Amino acid sequence: MTKTLSLQAPAIFRGPLSALPATLEWVGGADGVLRILDQTQLPLRIEIRDCRTVEDTWEAIRMLRVRGAPAIGVAAAYGLCLGTRPFRAVPADAFLAKVREVGAYLRTCRPTAVNLAWALQRVTEAAEQCTRTGGNTWEAMLLAAHALAVEDAETCRLIGEAGAHLVPEGGGVLTHCNAGALATVAYGTALALLYIAHQRGLRFHVFVDETRPLLQGARLTAFELTTAGLDVTLLCDGAAASLLQSGRVQLVVVGADRIAANGDTANKIGTYGVALAARRHDIPFYVAAPLSTFDRALASGAGIPIEERGADEIRRVLDQPVAPPTVQCYNPAFDVTPAELITGIVTQRGIATPVTAEQIARLFR
Amino acid sequence: MTKTLSLQAPAIFRGPLSALPATLEWVGGADGVLRILDQTQLPLRIEIRDCRTVEDTWEAIRMLRVRGAPAIGVAAAYGLCLGTRPFRAVPADAFLAKVREVGAYLRTCRPTAVNLAWALQRVTEAAEQCTRTGGNTWEAMLLAAHALAVEDAETCRLIGEAGAHLVPEGGGVLTHCNAGALATVAYGTALALLYIAHQRGLRFHVFVDETRPLLQGARLTAFELTTAGLDVTLLCDGAAASLLQSGRVQLVVVGADRIAANGDTANKIGTYGVALAARRHDIPFYVAAPLSTFDRALASGAGIPIEERGADEIRRVLDQPVAPPTVQCYNPAFDVTPAELITGIVTQRGIATPVTAEQIARLFR
Repeated sequence: MTKTLSLQAPAIFRGPLSALPATLEWVGGADGVLRILDQTQLPLRIEIRDCRTVEDTWEAIRMLRVRGAPAIGVAAAYGLCLGTRPFRAVPADAFLAKVREVGAYLRTCRPTAVNLAWALQRVTEAAEQCTRTGGNTWEAMLLAAHALAVEDAETCRLIGEAGAHLVPEGGGVLTHCNAGALATVAYGTALALLYIAHQRGLRFHVFVDETRPLLQGARLTAFELTTAGLDVTLLCDGAAASLLQSGRVQLVVVGADRIAANGDTANKIGTYGVALAARRHDIPFYVAAPLSTFDRALASGAGIPIEERGADEIRRVLDQPVAPPTVQCYNPAFDVTPAELITGIVTQRGIATPVTAEQIARLFR
Repeated sequence: MTKTLSLQAPAIFRGPLSALPATLEWVGGADGVLRILDQTQLPLRIEIRDCRTVEDTWEAIRMLRVRGAPAIGVAAAYGLCLGTRPFRAVPADAFLAKVREVGAYLRTCRPTAVNLAWALQRVTEAAEQCTRTGGNTWEAMLLAAHALAVEDAETCRLIGEAGAHLVPEGGGVLTHCNAGALATVAYGTALALLYIAHQRGLRFHVFVDETRPLLQGARLTAFELTTAGLDVTLLCDGAAASLLQSGRVQLVVVGADRIAANGDTANKIGTYGVALAARRHDIPFYVAAPLSTFDRALASGAGIPIEERGADEIRRVLDQPVAPPTVQCYNPAFDVTPAELITGIVTQRGIATPVTAEQIARLFR
């Protein structure tokens, strides 16, 4: 009984969005479930969904019910626990083989965000270490997943603290897609800067690209920022260059799905075009991300795999046709912004600026 | 009877899209109507709509049932005829006053495209001249509108002939919004280059930005190009920079809504961002437009009025909500691309390149 209680999900201070259900959370103890806020239904419906199996979790990540690199990592960590729970009683070697098998399966759900592989690795290492020392392996994995969740919220808060001073008092900030509380356990990455600045009493305006095809800017970012009481203006992705030209924006800040060792950054499709327009108008362009988003094994962005998604995300909007039904589509989920267009990368250990391999390496020392 | 017959709408060779109802056409003689293909219903429904009054015409232009700078001009010319027809019998001075009054009303329906004012001016001048020489004023106006329609189709074909050699054999072309047959009486402006190249047997691939908020790229350009048998790939506006980065595009060509004397070009929102990405990757960026799209009274693009449209175009897609219902929106219909980002401007009198006030002035000599 005591043991079960210690496996209960930890309480996490969720900051600006505590009035909403959590982006994702473990509910219960050893027999618990992963509960997610189904982001495909926002902002029209606030629906939670319980993942009881690894297949549920795989589907929830693949279908973007839970999305955002940090949130995907934590969800996958819990998914690994769900997928191995039925095998808790098997011998250690067989159990570890199962851990690796379920981990390999979870790695297939989305290819670009490196946090997913990173989080699975963390939980797998906990299992390996526990096996060596003879503890309760599965319980150690669940505790490792809980630790990841706690860490993610704290990391995001620290990112916000590290970058909040970049927010222009009385000015405008542009963001793309959703790198907010809905993309993490709490606070977000890019939006953490804005939440902390807002908590500090700064007044500023946030411009949000709607972010086609899946409209995460319109559906999620505009929703979470207005829920938290910030001033928001929504625009179509094509209007971003014109907005930056207009002089109303003094800071661009976005999240990241994978950052190479040299600072080249994969983020939601459209980010690269925003970075080009920011450079044209000498507006600082920052990326905000936890260290887990760096893939230091990749020398540059050229090696980042880019997920290509289905044509119907473009041919249809909200399940209604908007284009000839058989037209071919180009639908990469991400693009890569070269490091030289990025003013700085805000992390929980401070800001790498200028964005060079050396400055990034310093964050990891 | 003979006179009525001579007022019949002229036959216009409609080229690549002759299988579809005309973008707009006068049907009948002196008692005729302006018949338009309702573009708000495409590509799902092919619906025609008869404008019998100037108010019908104003509504059709304002609601984008007929759109595209050249098509708007011709529609407005016919609208001026519809609005003054009930006053045919009044004395010349009173009739001319009515012409100016109806023209002023039509100028209010959309502010950015200069073709609208230009076409109204042409028909008004026909009325003034006819009054001086004592002819049938209203009939002269209708004939002037017919002449504009014939001229527009021929102008567009000439634009296509002037620029078709720019289309890369075996390569890729990117376009934004709809500067096609649906934006003109026939052929289009930017797409005229592609139609003529296709008629000449060239093989190439066309990439089409979907063009939020109203999705003219998805709904109209992808539709008309596939109807005409071209190879088309549709993408979200945010993916254009990534596409240009990928090396698959060797030419960008777009239309224009107003071009200042120095070549600064107002075109559909998103064009400026595409131009920035094209410059970054050294891809030729051309504008294609008739001379009537130039506003030589404006020294630069800074003076071009930019239409700001309603927030619900962004907050809703196909009348379904996609964002918090009260969020503010930034929704300019156009942006201005500076001349220095434009490789050349293709007109019915050849190509202005480099894009300078001098090269443009030469086209008008």
